[in-house]
Amino acid sequence: MGGDHAPEEIVKGALEARELLDAGDQLQLIGVQEIVEQQLSTLGARDGAVTIVPAEEIIGMDDPPVESLRRKRKSSIAIMARMAAHEETDAVISAGNTGACVAACQLRMRNLPNVNRPGIAVVLPTLGGPVTVCDVGANVSCKPINLYQYAVMSSVYSTRILGIENPRIAIMSIGEEESKGNDLVKRTRELLRSDPSLNFIGNLEGRDIFDGSCDVVICEGFVGNVILKLTEGLVEMLFQAIKHELVTGDLRLAMEFKPIMKEIYKKYDYHEYGGALLLGIDGTSVICHGSSKSRTIKNAILAAKKFYTLKINERIMQRLSSSLVKANGQ
Amino acid sequence: MGGDHAPEEIVKGALEARELLDAGDQLQLIGVQEIVEQQLSTLGARDGAVTIVPAEEIIGMDDPPVESLRRKRKSSIAIMARMAAHEETDAVISAGNTGACVAACQLRMRNLPNVNRPGIAVVLPTLGGPVTVCDVGANVSCKPINLYQYAVMSSVYSTRILGIENPRIAIMSIGEEESKGNDLVKRTRELLRSDPSLNFIGNLEGRDIFDGSCDVVICEGFVGNVILKLTEGLVEMLFQAIKHELVTGDLRLAMEFKPIMKEIYKKYDYHEYGGALLLGIDGTSVICHGSSKSRTIKNAILAAKKFYTLKINERIMQRLSSSLVKANGQ
Repeated sequence: MGGDHAPEEIVKGALEARELLDAGDQLQLIGVQEIVEQQLSTLGARDGAVTIVPAEEIIGMDDPPVESLRRKRKSSIAIMARMAAHEETDAVISAGNTGACVAACQLRMRNLPNVNRPGIAVVLPTLGGPVTVCDVGANVSCKPINLYQYAVMSSVYSTRILGIENPRIAIMSIGEEESKGNDLVKRTRELLRSDPSLNFIGNLEGRDIFDGSCDVVICEGFVGNVILKLTEGLVEMLFQAIKHELVTGDLRLAMEFKPIMKEIYKKYDYHEYGGALLLGIDGTSVICHGSSKSRTIKNAILAAKKFYTLKINERIMQRLSSSLVKANGQ
Repeated sequence: MGGDHAPEEIVKGALEARELLDAGDQLQLIGVQEIVEQQLSTLGARDGAVTIVPAEEIIGMDDPPVESLRRKRKSSIAIMARMAAHEETDAVISAGNTGACVAACQLRMRNLPNVNRPGIAVVLPTLGGPVTVCDVGANVSCKPINLYQYAVMSSVYSTRILGIENPRIAIMSIGEEESKGNDLVKRTRELLRSDPSLNFIGNLEGRDIFDGSCDVVICEGFVGNVILKLTEGLVEMLFQAIKHELVTGDLRLAMEFKPIMKEIYKKYDYHEYGGALLLGIDGTSVICHGSSKSRTIKNAILAAKKFYTLKINERIMQRLSSSLVKANGQ
């Protein structure tokens, strides 16, 4: 039921993923039964392609997350998190109210051992390859230990999911020099330095995210969310500016340039990675952008399967249990 | 002596500005005498166009700001701030080590009455018009009262310098809803709300900076610096991506597209505004990007003159002295 294009694009994405999943994989759609059934039939889904888990309530995109969860216990998001907590499903995916999704997963599913706070990781495509940024909004009052754990978890993610050996980890700061940054950055840097298993390369400035100088960027949720949203908004504005300039100028050139714009959009479109991973909870939870279309939903389902199948959480647990930096190490 | 292209571009920019200033305006270049003289002569400056204030030392772009200032009391940056403090000059401009510039101005020049901490304001050009962002790096441990004062000062700046009547002020947050944000954002919002003379419109998400929904964005220095640098880096990457796509594809199209890229670059180039203003100090201080070329320096000099002539600081003092929100109001 969640997202700006629900239910159509969500159901469509699920059916697209269905074609690429194994026969043994089961796909469950949680939502208002009649609406989902209607949509499945409109899209000509074959019988038994997916099963429907009925939900009577819907949490709106702008509803206050925690309050809505409490009030709407029969919403699709609340049911989703309960199913994951009770191991009635191996992975959950939503394009609904992000705050409510994160809160539901945090409330219902336990954290992994040695994880204090989960973090949301997104992959940004750049000229220098995919960069994993964590946290982009789960935790707006981070402590050094949280950022340290984000570094470990994102490093595992980057290696296992993106295939990057020994990923270069940087901490977002406001200058490259040692002396730069706020108190949180300085204290986190010490923790990151103290773990020789991390390939920590130091401070990163905002301008360097996209130039291929690192594979993982660690930051507190407020800063990460600004980075994510700003990137979206700026790309949008620049493409609009180009379009405006082309259309008011030379219409033929505009037509010729269109496929190139599309090509670039495709290459640097983070929808390609199918949403954000909630790292640190005992389960697999993929959070999609509210604007997700079927392609993103399809990719999110495949990403969730990959995350589950590759046992990312087991690797994270191994790394954190063998680390000398513990929760009281802040 | 400061900036990646000093002394050539700095001296060139000064001479370009000279042509646009009034006869009564005096332009002083602080730097190593022989180097500046040499540059003036290479550029064929007429006698008396500018005067040279000799400085024996140079603070490098990557030198630790505060330490360098202490060690290099005869550096151009240290002398610049002393001259401003002693009212031997009405406005100062530098493209040198930003940290050192800010620190020098903060140490030597007093704050305006009722200002607790100065903030750096930059103007970002957007499709919806120029947006003033403050603070972008002077203050990484902001309190609500600091952000409140940035809002008042930026509002005056936006009105007087950019001609925007009753500028819409937003606070950078991670969601538009009231409940969103960190503790600093929530507490600042109360202060901003309590001042009816401010046109405060609430939270702003990263994606909305560029869509014309506000005129002034308030944030703490760490976040603002990330916004500024990220914007630089992302614009750079996107243009490179477009170039790459064009060059590997159709070379004729690449050639045709070049002037359009240039046009966009010009329109959305924040060098146009000539640097950042240090708001809240008793004087006029413009801080330019290290990469500044002569055009930026020229614009910075003209911006400094405008700031001084329009008595922005007097307006700021009036507004803050009549405000009911005082420094103990945090």
